[in-house]
Amino acid sequence: MDQRVLVASNRGPVSYQFGADGSLTGSRGGGGMIAGVTDGLAALGPETSVTWICAALSDADRTVARSHENSLRDEAGIPVRMLDIAPGTFDRAYNNVANSALWFLLHQLFDTPSQPRFGREFRRDWESYLAYNEAFADALTEETLTGATLSSVADPRVLVQDYHLCLTPRLLRDRLGEAVRDIGIGHFCHTPWAPPDYYRMLPDEVARALLDGILGADRAGFHAQRWATAFMDCCAAVLGADVSRTGLAGPGPGPAGRVTYRGHVTEVAVHPLGVDAPALRERGRAGDVRAHVSALRRAAGDRKLIVRVDRTELSKNIVRGLEAYRELLATRPQWRGRVVHLAFAYPSRSALAEYRAYTDQVRELARQINGEFRTEDWDPLILEVKDDYPRSLAAYALADVLLVNPIKDGMNLVAQEGMVLTERGCALVLSREAGAAATLAADALLVNPYDVSETAEALHRALTMTDAERQRRSAALAATAAADPPARWLGGQLASLGS
Amino acid sequence: MDQRVLVASNRGPVSYQFGADGSLTGSRGGGGMIAGVTDGLAALGPETSVTWICAALSDADRTVARSHENSLRDEAGIPVRMLDIAPGTFDRAYNNVANSALWFLLHQLFDTPSQPRFGREFRRDWESYLAYNEAFADALTEETLTGATLSSVADPRVLVQDYHLCLTPRLLRDRLGEAVRDIGIGHFCHTPWAPPDYYRMLPDEVARALLDGILGADRAGFHAQRWATAFMDCCAAVLGADVSRTGLAGPGPGPAGRVTYRGHVTEVAVHPLGVDAPALRERGRAGDVRAHVSALRRAAGDRKLIVRVDRTELSKNIVRGLEAYRELLATRPQWRGRVVHLAFAYPSRSALAEYRAYTDQVRELARQINGEFRTEDWDPLILEVKDDYPRSLAAYALADVLLVNPIKDGMNLVAQEGMVLTERGCALVLSREAGAAATLAADALLVNPYDVSETAEALHRALTMTDAERQRRSAALAATAAADPPARWLGGQLASLGS
Repeated sequence: MDQRVLVASNRGPVSYQFGADGSLTGSRGGGGMIAGVTDGLAALGPETSVTWICAALSDADRTVARSHENSLRDEAGIPVRMLDIAPGTFDRAYNNVANSALWFLLHQLFDTPSQPRFGREFRRDWESYLAYNEAFADALTEETLTGATLSSVADPRVLVQDYHLCLTPRLLRDRLGEAVRDIGIGHFCHTPWAPPDYYRMLPDEVARALLDGILGADRAGFHAQRWATAFMDCCAAVLGADVSRTGLAGPGPGPAGRVTYRGHVTEVAVHPLGVDAPALRERGRAGDVRAHVSALRRAAGDRKLIVRVDRTELSKNIVRGLEAYRELLATRPQWRGRVVHLAFAYPSRSALAEYRAYTDQVRELARQINGEFRTEDWDPLILEVKDDYPRSLAAYALADVLLVNPIKDGMNLVAQEGMVLTERGCALVLSREAGAAATLAADALLVNPYDVSETAEALHRALTMTDAERQRRSAALAATAAADPPARWLGGQLASLGS
Repeated sequence: MDQRVLVASNRGPVSYQFGADGSLTGSRGGGGMIAGVTDGLAALGPETSVTWICAALSDADRTVARSHENSLRDEAGIPVRMLDIAPGTFDRAYNNVANSALWFLLHQLFDTPSQPRFGREFRRDWESYLAYNEAFADALTEETLTGATLSSVADPRVLVQDYHLCLTPRLLRDRLGEAVRDIGIGHFCHTPWAPPDYYRMLPDEVARALLDGILGADRAGFHAQRWATAFMDCCAAVLGADVSRTGLAGPGPGPAGRVTYRGHVTEVAVHPLGVDAPALRERGRAGDVRAHVSALRRAAGDRKLIVRVDRTELSKNIVRGLEAYRELLATRPQWRGRVVHLAFAYPSRSALAEYRAYTDQVRELARQINGEFRTEDWDPLILEVKDDYPRSLAAYALADVLLVNPIKDGMNLVAQEGMVLTERGCALVLSREAGAAATLAADALLVNPYDVSETAEALHRALTMTDAERQRRSAALAATAAADPPARWLGGQLASLGS
């Protein structure tokens, strides 16, 4: 019998743009989640029928959604159903609730004396978040029940993605009624989860609804044990749910516990998302990447390279990373003239004032550091703010040290991609607050992301590591990153939802 | 045999000012901690000999400390030993470590994308915090060993106060050597304590040193079970100490658990600090308070009064309190013209930029609210920024509703003083994040301090409460606040340290 898989996520595998002449062109959706799901689905084979449900993100998307409601496909040929949600509703759900309140909450980014303020406006935004989740639940219900009428197709398994869609599992369960028994619903959260003391900043009814929403799923997945534990702690503290923690044997995938609430059991599990190492290495051999390798090598000369690659996202901690580099140059003068820091800080969420201010802060600090230490033939810091994927891969290939120091991060792909692509071995300075720290702890240099001095010292230690040690650690890290490729990550979730 | 008690705290019971002619005058030190300790000591009786060790806070204090090293006394006649710590050391220990890093950490006030940044400067500040704690430990050692030579005086009990002096108990224990066996060392923290996930923002060595420092005491006290639990959780997570939680039977004083570390056992206990109700009521009958009662009554007319009294301290959450009042007027128009909000926001820590900016924000918001709702004969909001204790007491006497909505608060005296002084019964809208919420939960209206709408609704509910309900709740709250007066709070700690 053929398998059927339904994926639901805010951003889909394809998005559209209007050309200057009004024509529409599609392109692949960006981001780690899309890549992970797409690559995971690709490994399932032709006996699996997939439908991907996503939101129209722009006017161009909406135009396509209206005219091709049931006939869209992404580059890989997967049918895509794009939901035409009213722009105001989408904006409030996506920008105000998901990317402001929830993202800030789950990454613990609030400037607490001032933010958040949950007043009347937030209640209106929250209604939109509910309506947006209902649109997904309606579409999933329709797809589920349609599929169920075909006797040659197995009952579907539903994979709901991320913090945008916390309410969807419960809404779907309620809509399906008795039919839910034959259907497996999974939810996967790509972000961290906050411990109860922080989580309870949310209004009570919102705090309860989000947890209850995810508990509508049969399986709730996280990248790391730590986030799974925080989620279960919230279920116990906020909902009074019955929680049993089974614990994990190691840092890899496995069950973390179960939560019983409203007569339903949700298994909570850890599924770290690594990288498809062979595909990534192949991409790294392409001409555009090689050209950047040559250019970067010329720019750096024979100096050591410290690399970072991030969106300019508050959680990525770019400012403290630059401060650590400044402290390295100040306290270890032997590195002056002998190291270059390549900091790629790509634009992100520039619609939000906090992000614009943060970008300004990054630029100003970079200017200060160069002003402080620059010599006639040495620029200590090269800050690039224009996104360039092949150049990022080239930087990974050349880096002596990769700096990944987020305040909080659900997993972190940069650390893993860097270890896979390094050509002569690369030391990894990694925040202990990244989900990836659970799998990479043994061979990375772990740092407290708030501790600028400790980070500076870790950079020094990374720079002074012997070639042999660096290569040994780097190879071990690459093997770990390659151990949980998207196919395993997605396959593990599907397997746990039954056949 | 006479008892001997040594108190150590940053701020002492007396402080000095230079007059215009260069003469020195002393006045009573301010703040809830000073009042609690002073009143607690007063109840001990003449068979107890007390010495209070504190820091010189100003040039005037330093001048006095140098010329009267061993002969200072406070208003109650208690001998005071004022430590003349170098101004730079004091400034770094007090402003940079205690009031910036530690206060922000324990109240969870950091704007995490930018603050804290623990770099080289912090390490220098931390050395000063250590030196400052060493000065206290040296003085305590001297006082302890001096006292021990008098056979008519029992071995002393030492009461170390607050987050300024976290290292002192361990330093004192180490200095005393074998002599420590006969001496009881207590530490009491008047702030909240942060759970491990937040606490671990500190550099590792600092996080360990603070906990280890307090664990040098035989008893560690907190105002509420919640902070005691967070402290013990940090001891387990950060130090790997052996922690056994005994739990409390109720919200009042009692043991919370014990921590075993480096071969020494520290009992962790809860001692809520309430108010001396008879003394407070007597103060409330004084002429200066009565004059303010009349003036405030005239200003408010027959309108309902919502009162808040706070230092303009980031943790006090004044901005969200004003937002809640604005939302009340917007969503419940029946209160327009029928209620006045008296907001007393006294100056605090104006040396710190964050506090000056916050004060500006409070003023601007107050201006907006008055601009939005003011009518010819009604000012909806009266903001007073000049400290006036008798006027505060008068406001308590008249308030129909007292708003106390801190983000986090070790205990909170305003809530308790207000309930004791109300003349016709007062409804209490209280943050669940205040330590006092543990004892006052049954009859206060508890709110999530981040939830402006919930706070607005609680204000509405408080305003619409029947006289009978308000008076019943208010009387119960006053009785609870009076149940743990300073004498009991201090006596309980001394009793637990043995005779």
